Amino acid sequence: MGYTLQQLADHVAGRVVGDDTVVIGRVATLSDASPGSISFLTSSAYRKHLASTRASAVIIRENALDSCTTNALVVENPHVAYARIVHLLYPEIRTIAGIHPSAVVEESATIAGSAYIGPNTYIGHSVVISENVSIGPGCVLENGVKIDSNTSLQANVTIRHDCQLGKYCLVHPGVVIGSDGFGQANDNGVWVKIPQVGRVIIGDDVEIGANTTIDRGAIQDTVISDNVKLDNLIQIAHNVHIGAHTAIAAGAAIAGSARIGKHCTIAGMVGIAGHLEIADNVTITAMSLVGHSLHEPGVYSGTLPLDTNQQWRKNAVRFKQLDEMAKRLKKLESPQGK
Amino acid sequence: MGYTLQQLADHVAGRVVGDDTVVIGRVATLSDASPGSISFLTSSAYRKHLASTRASAVIIRENALDSCTTNALVVENPHVAYARIVHLLYPEIRTIAGIHPSAVVEESATIAGSAYIGPNTYIGHSVVISENVSIGPGCVLENGVKIDSNTSLQANVTIRHDCQLGKYCLVHPGVVIGSDGFGQANDNGVWVKIPQVGRVIIGDDVEIGANTTIDRGAIQDTVISDNVKLDNLIQIAHNVHIGAHTAIAAGAAIAGSARIGKHCTIAGMVGIAGHLEIADNVTITAMSLVGHSLHEPGVYSGTLPLDTNQQWRKNAVRFKQLDEMAKRLKKLESPQGK
Amino acid sequence: MGYTLQQLADHVAGRVVGDDTVVIGRVATLSDASPGSISFLTSSAYRKHLASTRASAVIIRENALDSCTTNALVVENPHVAYARIVHLLYPEIRTIAGIHPSAVVEESATIAGSAYIGPNTYIGHSVVISENVSIGPGCVLENGVKIDSNTSLQANVTIRHDCQLGKYCLVHPGVVIGSDGFGQANDNGVWVKIPQVGRVIIGDDVEIGANTTIDRGAIQDTVISDNVKLDNLIQIAHNVHIGAHTAIAAGAAIAGSARIGKHCTIAGMVGIAGHLEIADNVTITAMSLVGHSLHEPGVYSGTLPLDTNQQWRKNAVRFKQLDEMAKRLKKLESPQGK
Repeated sequence: MGYTLQQLADHVAGRVVGDDTVVIGRVATLSDASPGSISFLTSSAYRKHLASTRASAVIIRENALDSCTTNALVVENPHVAYARIVHLLYPEIRTIAGIHPSAVVEESATIAGSAYIGPNTYIGHSVVISENVSIGPGCVLENGVKIDSNTSLQANVTIRHDCQLGKYCLVHPGVVIGSDGFGQANDNGVWVKIPQVGRVIIGDDVEIGANTTIDRGAIQDTVISDNVKLDNLIQIAHNVHIGAHTAIAAGAAIAGSARIGKHCTIAGMVGIAGHLEIADNVTITAMSLVGHSLHEPGVYSGTLPLDTNQQWRKNAVRFKQLDEMAKRLKKLESPQGK
Repeated sequence: MGYTLQQLADHVAGRVVGDDTVVIGRVATLSDASPGSISFLTSSAYRKHLASTRASAVIIRENALDSCTTNALVVENPHVAYARIVHLLYPEIRTIAGIHPSAVVEESATIAGSAYIGPNTYIGHSVVISENVSIGPGCVLENGVKIDSNTSLQANVTIRHDCQLGKYCLVHPGVVIGSDGFGQANDNGVWVKIPQVGRVIIGDDVEIGANTTIDRGAIQDTVISDNVKLDNLIQIAHNVHIGAHTAIAAGAAIAGSARIGKHCTIAGMVGIAGHLEIADNVTITAMSLVGHSLHEPGVYSGTLPLDTNQQWRKNAVRFKQLDEMAKRLKKLESPQGK
Repeated sequence: MGYTLQQLADHVAGRVVGDDTVVIGRVATLSDASPGSISFLTSSAYRKHLASTRASAVIIRENALDSCTTNALVVENPHVAYARIVHLLYPEIRTIAGIHPSAVVEESATIAGSAYIGPNTYIGHSVVISENVSIGPGCVLENGVKIDSNTSLQANVTIRHDCQLGKYCLVHPGVVIGSDGFGQANDNGVWVKIPQVGRVIIGDDVEIGANTTIDRGAIQDTVISDNVKLDNLIQIAHNVHIGAHTAIAAGAAIAGSARIGKHCTIAGMVGIAGHLEIADNVTITAMSLVGHSLHEPGVYSGTLPLDTNQQWRKNAVRFKQLDEMAKRLKKLESPQGK
């Protein structure tokens, strides 16, 4: 049960400093570790725990070796090495191939022999489920949905008709993919629904967090590119395009037809207005509202820092006078003082 | 398969300029259109695409005719005409009447002959389902729920006991209607739950987006009026009233007992505090916090514009000094400069 | 059907002023009451309704007796007394013990004799369901989940493997507990998933609102303490700890490894950054962003007040000049005026 430190080092192309025969069976935080576990250091904030950790080994960068009092696994990127080692120590328990007898599968659906369809799940007409796909309990896949190989849908996921997911995706419980975009035309005060005839097309290695919603396109498709990572409770509106390797944290919402670049990092509860473009390599800090296109990479912000309510009220009142204050300042600066 | 342009014009009471016999089978965006498709122009931002579109026809206003190089369908409101034409070209595929054998329906429920109950759905005691209603797979309708005619619930929708929906509503996957309002009384630091004995009453032609939640009233009912349109992941707290023809975008949250008027437009991620009133015809821009009643129609805002993080940090620090700055400015303005 | 006012007074240790034999059968608001109902007054804002209410009795504090024209039930905390009286007048309808034939229960699961398992629900391997637990329709409890006695899960709830809930909890529809934390390591631009090997551990008397999501820990557990009350659509990230008796309103999101104290009140749509600590007895007002630890109890805020869009635009433009304004003010204050 476990791997020697040398075996783990080989797995992540790292170097052992210390006893390479020690056996590792699990992961732990530096402060909570016990013998038999491996920990890691990615942030200098936790370096203080390095001297006292009881971990049998620690994944670190070369420059932290001095502070390490236990066995070290030296790598360039401890976070990535840690990720790969967790995959090794905690292998995913594969669902067993087959269709649970309580699942309802329409005759025209195509289910690969190695796929799993869980209890009380519904698979619609002409759905195509590829090899090694796992569909958990309580899911609904409407007509014409296609799920490519090795993708996993957990419980109570809904995928509306004709949407497509790539390979090696992971979809958490409660996710809705392919709901109608919010298209309403205003006819003298009365809203008239605009049927949404596009789809959602999702690339490979995409992760979608619990209860996140992704709307289908109005005419063309909503597109989520390869290796995009979406956290929980995110809203992706119709016709949004998200570039590859972009990560979005929980509670963010992206309005219709926005185009987000590659390698962007969008923090929690960020709002992005519709019909704009965000360049590659843009970072947006938490709870900011993006109201216009961002053509340059970089870090953008727009949220005020918290204060005590007493102090905050004083300043917030002044905010309403800010334009007037600016004019008064200008007047004082003028030669005649007016 | 399709309609002549004249047939479409008749359907929306519009006028053809050009070839009224051209056959239209689908919709497309101006820039992506190909022959056989119809497109539309509602925003001058897209007017540049009018000259080069390959659409067989374009729905436009009279004043855009000059720029149109293909056949035109001239109407007063292209957005509404487009909506009606999509309904015509992409008729909804009706579910076939009947109760799926895997559904669980309590004996005391009343299901109209033309209604559809999908796989793995549960229909509680004394539920009433009217004509042409469609309940998708995985839904749960608790005891005493009433769904009026022609309303459609998609997959995995939950409606708690005794709530009512009107005619021609559309409820997207994952929606929860009738969950308990957040009523907690504080007994010397310990929260005591207040049972929520009201219901949710929803009018006709209401659309409710994916994973949106609408809480039941504490004593009286939560009320959503006719033709209200709710986007995804919205929270409607107990005893909220929303007036007819109001539209609310994704991620907004409305706290308890707020009363929202008719014909309001509430943008994404807006927060509305409890126990306040918002007049008819109010528009609130994205991510604003409404902390007091709004008695006048108009547009309201409260969110700062995004900036580069470097520049934003400079200004955000100054915000904490704003009250002090105002006092210093006042002092400079005083005759003695103090 | 109903209780005498004296019986209700005995139930909440209150004192009747007036006719203690009047029979009460339901609750009502002051303005909407009719004979046979009991109402309550907790906020002076509603005191004006006290004179005209048609309620047969009103729950009030001693100091409101003067304004009361009907029978009074005098208590120290009317809100708590009201809560207890609603529980008495509207007893919860208990689900009948047993496993619905459409539920799928793995053989290795342990289900107490008094527990209820609803239609189309899935109970995984080695799940333990204690006495008087009620699991509604469409729920999914993955392998190794433990639910302690008297806890109720409503419809379409998902609990992922190995998570635990205490006694007397109430979980609303669409909740997801134990989804993976958002752990991604960046390998030269490509996100590598970090498997999340912790659990979610939930204490006693916890309420979790509709469609709220609680992620499992990365290594250690995510912990929700006793008597915590969570509203709808809240995100709790991996390794968050929430202290006892803390209440969080709808739409709030708490990032990874944040530690929230006891008796905190967190308003709607508040964002809390990761890896910080919030002391006991902290209140955060709506839509604020908490970006650093709060070591002192008190009320904190960070959101600007709403304004008309016209006025708001003027001030928002000036916000971008705030640092420059501060420097100009400083210059004016200097002896030489430069």
